[in-house]
Amino acid sequence: MNQSAIARSWVEHANGHRDFPLQNLPLGIFTHKNQAKRCGVAIGDAILDLEGALAAGLFEGQARTAVESTRGGALNAYFALGRVARVALRERLLQLLGEHSEHQAALKPLLLASAECQLHLPAQIGDYTDFYVGIEHAKNVGKLFRPDNPLLPNYKYVPIGYHGRASTIRPSGTDVRRPKGQTLPAGQSEPSFGPCARLDYELELGIWIGQGNEMGESIPVAEAAEHIAGFCLLNDWSARDIQAWEYQPLGPFLSKSFISTVSPWVVTAEALEPFRCAQPARPEGDPQPLSYLLDKRDQAAGAFDIELEVLLLTERMREQNLPAHRLTLSNTLSMYWTVAQMVAHHSVNGCQLQPGDLFGSGTLSGAQPGQFGSLLEITQGGKEPVQLASGEVRKFLEDGDEIILRARCVREGVASIGFGECRGKVLPAR
Amino acid sequence: MNQSAIARSWVEHANGHRDFPLQNLPLGIFTHKNQAKRCGVAIGDAILDLEGALAAGLFEGQARTAVESTRGGALNAYFALGRVARVALRERLLQLLGEHSEHQAALKPLLLASAECQLHLPAQIGDYTDFYVGIEHAKNVGKLFRPDNPLLPNYKYVPIGYHGRASTIRPSGTDVRRPKGQTLPAGQSEPSFGPCARLDYELELGIWIGQGNEMGESIPVAEAAEHIAGFCLLNDWSARDIQAWEYQPLGPFLSKSFISTVSPWVVTAEALEPFRCAQPARPEGDPQPLSYLLDKRDQAAGAFDIELEVLLLTERMREQNLPAHRLTLSNTLSMYWTVAQMVAHHSVNGCQLQPGDLFGSGTLSGAQPGQFGSLLEITQGGKEPVQLASGEVRKFLEDGDEIILRARCVREGVASIGFGECRGKVLPAR
Repeated sequence: MNQSAIARSWVEHANGHRDFPLQNLPLGIFTHKNQAKRCGVAIGDAILDLEGALAAGLFEGQARTAVESTRGGALNAYFALGRVARVALRERLLQLLGEHSEHQAALKPLLLASAECQLHLPAQIGDYTDFYVGIEHAKNVGKLFRPDNPLLPNYKYVPIGYHGRASTIRPSGTDVRRPKGQTLPAGQSEPSFGPCARLDYELELGIWIGQGNEMGESIPVAEAAEHIAGFCLLNDWSARDIQAWEYQPLGPFLSKSFISTVSPWVVTAEALEPFRCAQPARPEGDPQPLSYLLDKRDQAAGAFDIELEVLLLTERMREQNLPAHRLTLSNTLSMYWTVAQMVAHHSVNGCQLQPGDLFGSGTLSGAQPGQFGSLLEITQGGKEPVQLASGEVRKFLEDGDEIILRARCVREGVASIGFGECRGKVLPAR
Repeated sequence: MNQSAIARSWVEHANGHRDFPLQNLPLGIFTHKNQAKRCGVAIGDAILDLEGALAAGLFEGQARTAVESTRGGALNAYFALGRVARVALRERLLQLLGEHSEHQAALKPLLLASAECQLHLPAQIGDYTDFYVGIEHAKNVGKLFRPDNPLLPNYKYVPIGYHGRASTIRPSGTDVRRPKGQTLPAGQSEPSFGPCARLDYELELGIWIGQGNEMGESIPVAEAAEHIAGFCLLNDWSARDIQAWEYQPLGPFLSKSFISTVSPWVVTAEALEPFRCAQPARPEGDPQPLSYLLDKRDQAAGAFDIELEVLLLTERMREQNLPAHRLTLSNTLSMYWTVAQMVAHHSVNGCQLQPGDLFGSGTLSGAQPGQFGSLLEITQGGKEPVQLASGEVRKFLEDGDEIILRARCVREGVASIGFGECRGKVLPAR
């Protein structure tokens, strides 16, 4: 990699940082030592207190408007401002945190060690929608039920999605209480009630909605990218045994609504720009998207090439100081629909999107073993347990297990960036 | 009816009022002549301005706390107070508005003509969940697909529900823009895009959640009734052609999310108390609810006996001054699960409910023609059109059609109450 071409920060630990070099600059909401929630930007292992920098008079014009809108402990108003203000803030932050910054003395006291801060949800979530655009996941799951015909007839026409539960979305680090519910034991005709026995994770990309639309209006696919405020990681924890019994005919419900976890930093389209690549051609014979989903600019912009990883750490592995076990190494290139197509589809019926709404991509699996984004796929519904270096095996998650999602964008000649962690540990059922 | 036993109001038009006699006293959020949103109580054809009555010093103790919590244009904080404050406010309102009130002079200037006020959503809705507890509807719809086995195996064990869209819930009177979307024309293998051709209504009871629960905790069925703030009517507008193509495998999505309409007044459990009747016994052979759904007090309290009605008014009927056509006369007694069971089920996995969340019951149809709560059932999927006095026929809703939901509670020896209207007119697709 040609490091010389990569702009550096005077915040030394940011240079070469796994997730948060100068080129990333994601916003988030944090608290420091019992102070009120405020907005910060991640830079290396630190958080720059944006409200402090505002008070120090370091922002003007659009960038100032942007920072002012972040006050109050949630980024909804900032999301609503849209791309122009976001880009202005990014440009100013590149100046302030770049190696030639004239404001190092003023900024140094505003850099807080991330380890001393607590991260929160970046926005108040109005509605949460979970899509199903990971085509390999759809095939993998479909194969468990219909080996010869894994994809349903609508899959290649409709960006399938459904409404999820907003009230139980939590930031990384929140414990996951094992849910209880009804399940139908194998071979039985009557259900039982008790703790979930097939607890699973789902590896997803989260999409934060920026500017919304009025009810009854639609967002054209050509404008849809402008309505996206940023991205995160999302773990759509799933109770497979509850899901199998409850989901007909109206879809998943209590099998998902006990908690969903997001990474707290909002990574922007601008930061991800170097990591887009030409859309992989749809396989021969796949239909063209209907016209309301088709935009040349969207196709030309390319898909996001984001490497996604899932790590498992059991209680015993922590005791034995063993490294986390990698369950999944996948990529957002497996998305059959672009995020612009998801926005256009969601609003084509006049459904109102609002700043701070959250989309999930659906599970992003690859086609090969090692790339599967859930234990359901990895263990083939519990038939092929995972072997761990601790001597343990896992069909599904056990109490004390911790799941860590990570992301990484790598390209020759540019600084790599990541998303930070999306982490959660399973607690026993109450 | 023994009118002499029925307490009367000094607000004369309230006595014998179809919906809002002294015995009802539902709260709502209204605006009057461009003033800020405030809370009022419906009494006859008027709205009593509760904030004005508070300023006049007419409330003390719990009732005062209750009215204070209604300030700010939404009832979420009031819902969160729970039953004790709600009952205290009701008791005080019965004094203030009863025929022996000593405060008539102070209250008269605070009575606003309902016709001069605009009604709004009573609360800021966090999450919206639509259930499917109308067993006759489930059977009627199931029969269209599986004549011999209309109910799925989980129906009599699981209070089936799914997450709905909160951002597009609107108060009665909001126009309904015909949605556009993908549909699969009969006999075709590829979908088309265009305006919905099978627009439908669904007649539902709405349930407002009061006190919530922490994530990871459950609300026991024995306590669940305490977590309900009140009731309304809900029209779950549905695009049947979009629904048929999109809903596998994750449930209805854009076919529902374009709008849902609620009646704006929050009718309390206390007002509905005289209209409960012993739960109709489950049919011979039906399973007992699992223990987390079973509570003797809940069973003994009885089901709500609320008569529900759907009226259709077409453009031509309005021009010809024809009366509205009754499409449905149904009853909440068709609910297979109680509202307490719905709350207990929803939270049994630790899902957090919050004040201002909304539940829909699902479509409440009877078993007989004339009792069907949607056109899908009435016209058998469009095969048997409805004949109207205007000479028109309807398979599904056409532009200009207005749907009006009403409710009525009637019992010998007590004042009848209603819910007010839940009304919406269909506008052409954009």
